[in-house]
Amino acid sequence: MPQLPQPELPEPAHPTVDSMLSRKFGKEIANYFSGSPLNRVSFLRPDHAFLTAALHHPSTTFLLFNKLEPLLKSPSELAQKKFEDVKPVIGNNPFERPEEDTIAQYNSSLYLPQIIFLGLDERKEGFVYKEHYKGQPWFAVDVTPTESVKEEAEKLVEKVKSEGLDFSKGRMHLSLPAQEAAIYAEARHLLDWNARNPFCASCGYKTLSVNAGFKRTCPPKDIAQSVANAGERPPCATRTGISNLCFPRTDPTVIMAVVSADGKKMLLGRQKRWPPHWYSTLAGFLEPAESVEEAVRREVWEESGIHLGRVVIHSTQPWPYPANLMIGAIGQAIPEGETVHLGHDAELEDAKWFTAEEIREALRVGTSGLGEAAGPEYKEGGLRLPPATAIANQLMSAVVNGFASGTPMI
Amino acid sequence: MPQLPQPELPEPAHPTVDSMLSRKFGKEIANYFSGSPLNRVSFLRPDHAFLTAALHHPSTTFLLFNKLEPLLKSPSELAQKKFEDVKPVIGNNPFERPEEDTIAQYNSSLYLPQIIFLGLDERKEGFVYKEHYKGQPWFAVDVTPTESVKEEAEKLVEKVKSEGLDFSKGRMHLSLPAQEAAIYAEARHLLDWNARNPFCASCGYKTLSVNAGFKRTCPPKDIAQSVANAGERPPCATRTGISNLCFPRTDPTVIMAVVSADGKKMLLGRQKRWPPHWYSTLAGFLEPAESVEEAVRREVWEESGIHLGRVVIHSTQPWPYPANLMIGAIGQAIPEGETVHLGHDAELEDAKWFTAEEIREALRVGTSGLGEAAGPEYKEGGLRLPPATAIANQLMSAVVNGFASGTPMI
Repeated sequence: MPQLPQPELPEPAHPTVDSMLSRKFGKEIANYFSGSPLNRVSFLRPDHAFLTAALHHPSTTFLLFNKLEPLLKSPSELAQKKFEDVKPVIGNNPFERPEEDTIAQYNSSLYLPQIIFLGLDERKEGFVYKEHYKGQPWFAVDVTPTESVKEEAEKLVEKVKSEGLDFSKGRMHLSLPAQEAAIYAEARHLLDWNARNPFCASCGYKTLSVNAGFKRTCPPKDIAQSVANAGERPPCATRTGISNLCFPRTDPTVIMAVVSADGKKMLLGRQKRWPPHWYSTLAGFLEPAESVEEAVRREVWEESGIHLGRVVIHSTQPWPYPANLMIGAIGQAIPEGETVHLGHDAELEDAKWFTAEEIREALRVGTSGLGEAAGPEYKEGGLRLPPATAIANQLMSAVVNGFASGTPMI
Repeated sequence: MPQLPQPELPEPAHPTVDSMLSRKFGKEIANYFSGSPLNRVSFLRPDHAFLTAALHHPSTTFLLFNKLEPLLKSPSELAQKKFEDVKPVIGNNPFERPEEDTIAQYNSSLYLPQIIFLGLDERKEGFVYKEHYKGQPWFAVDVTPTESVKEEAEKLVEKVKSEGLDFSKGRMHLSLPAQEAAIYAEARHLLDWNARNPFCASCGYKTLSVNAGFKRTCPPKDIAQSVANAGERPPCATRTGISNLCFPRTDPTVIMAVVSADGKKMLLGRQKRWPPHWYSTLAGFLEPAESVEEAVRREVWEESGIHLGRVVIHSTQPWPYPANLMIGAIGQAIPEGETVHLGHDAELEDAKWFTAEEIREALRVGTSGLGEAAGPEYKEGGLRLPPATAIANQLMSAVVNGFASGTPMI
């Protein structure tokens, strides 16, 4: 059997535990952008004393972002900076006051650079909080030169560039080691969400980032508003009862390898904007009130006309462009439902059945990032596929290697 | 083996297809609120000619909602009304103009009752559109008496009450047949999302529901604004490039049966506000840039102190209160990580290990909806558990029946 490309993918957690579940279901499948080494200690995010201690600890590391692009040491390494570097932009302690005080004294006219607390790297000693919580603290900071921090942020950007560092250009999901990619994904997803949601969707007023970037709240008062109404805002539904409005958004998305009824062919589709000969698995957003299996069947029928019977979930992949949870599945067509029909939805330029041999060969020689060249053995006109860092590739590999049937195809 | 309670749960799709995937993975697991019989034909939602034809067809059915509560014929049956019933509230044709015209002539001062196109019931003949798309159209309409429709909506509410119908009080997830529950879930999720999101989170201006309730758009002009700026609004990020801001939100949530390292015990937790003796599986929101397995391990550790090794996805359940996709999993503790510690997060009042025998007995005699009484065989002081319509119950049943190990517990 030919060798499939082997990128650095995350190690599944506890791979050495010979558990009941491992024996029955095999090794856990981990995809790129998962596998973060950080403990998020999410319950400590509202604790300003914790955040202050973490911010100022000498071991603490900071990732810098400029317009959502991370600062890099090289294409395969994130740059890590210190508190003294970011202090001119974020000030000495944005976590100085308890959160309730910050909310009570909210002033919408002040620009506050976004800071995200990413978690503790428990492999690194030094920082300890309340005995239980140990490890190197990681933060992400938005240093985009804008508003009141324009001048200081520009200085910082110049300084890091003079050190030979630079902010990335475009997506970087092919070059970072797995664990760094997972940390980057967490930071990127949260910075993007905060940047896209400065206003309350329930009342239209400005919101304030709290919980170190993991929540936005709609304060009841705003010092910047006219004194006529003493800064009071109108009532907002997010301030009473349970609401998800001000929590980060993650969109469940289904992506699926579609196998023919006889198990010998796989359906792939292509979008018009893709390079020639490039195909991938079908995908789409899960809709309200659908199970994963239902979303898979609906999307496949809408995009290709194929009717699926059984659908099985394979693995999941966080995808921070901007906010997806990719839920990977394998679906099998029913015998009378294999005719491709592209007329329902206009999303795909083409969808067709490929033999396992074509896909296996393309996985060997024809994979790359979009816009990059294929490997040296690729012959012009052959099938092109996404790289191993994409769950689409992992789903196709799983099928040709026998995930669906128990025996490899062909 | 004692009989577990058997509520009406959805039938998995194509249960008779003896496919490769069915043979390998067994029958598909379908949970309550999934299993809708409707074809959503999502690609037809922007087509005003389709929506007009569907709205006016004599076979078309309408679900009515008042403050998110559906109109019922009985506790186990949704009331279905006709176009003539809702016409005084929604007007003769809210889909009269092409969507681009409606957006161009947007007037934020007009109140438009929310209408959702739910899909086509292909089992019922009559309505046909463009040859391919057939079946009884279903709509949901918000008839809450408010704003400019207050008077007409009040009349409608009085009229349906005089017919012996009434709007439900509170959650109804125990009483509807599976397929009606799934249709209700779709309507409820989308009505709630539209109601919670009248403003654009990116710019703070009012948005307009389009695509028959499945999208909200931020129009570039608003007739209701001052003529000084010709109704132009400031630029908004949602109007350029790809953005998910104006799509319905569905929050991926993990819920998990936790099994001890030896496979003989299960961990359950309880919240303070629950009735005495009531326990359930742990659960929590998936965070940005987590795989499902990582979210399960993080939540279990944060809430209970337990360290999990292998995690396996079991099934998913849409949950429209207000917008969740419950992703059900089974996780197994590592041998050195079985000590309960509630001190990290303050969410649970208690978490403890139960034997398979205790859980099996409680599944038999101690299940019910929150606030309802247990069955006749229940003895005071015994373990109480959620009903079979909840995925928590299905996960516990799966474990005691051998999903995780292949052989039933005990």
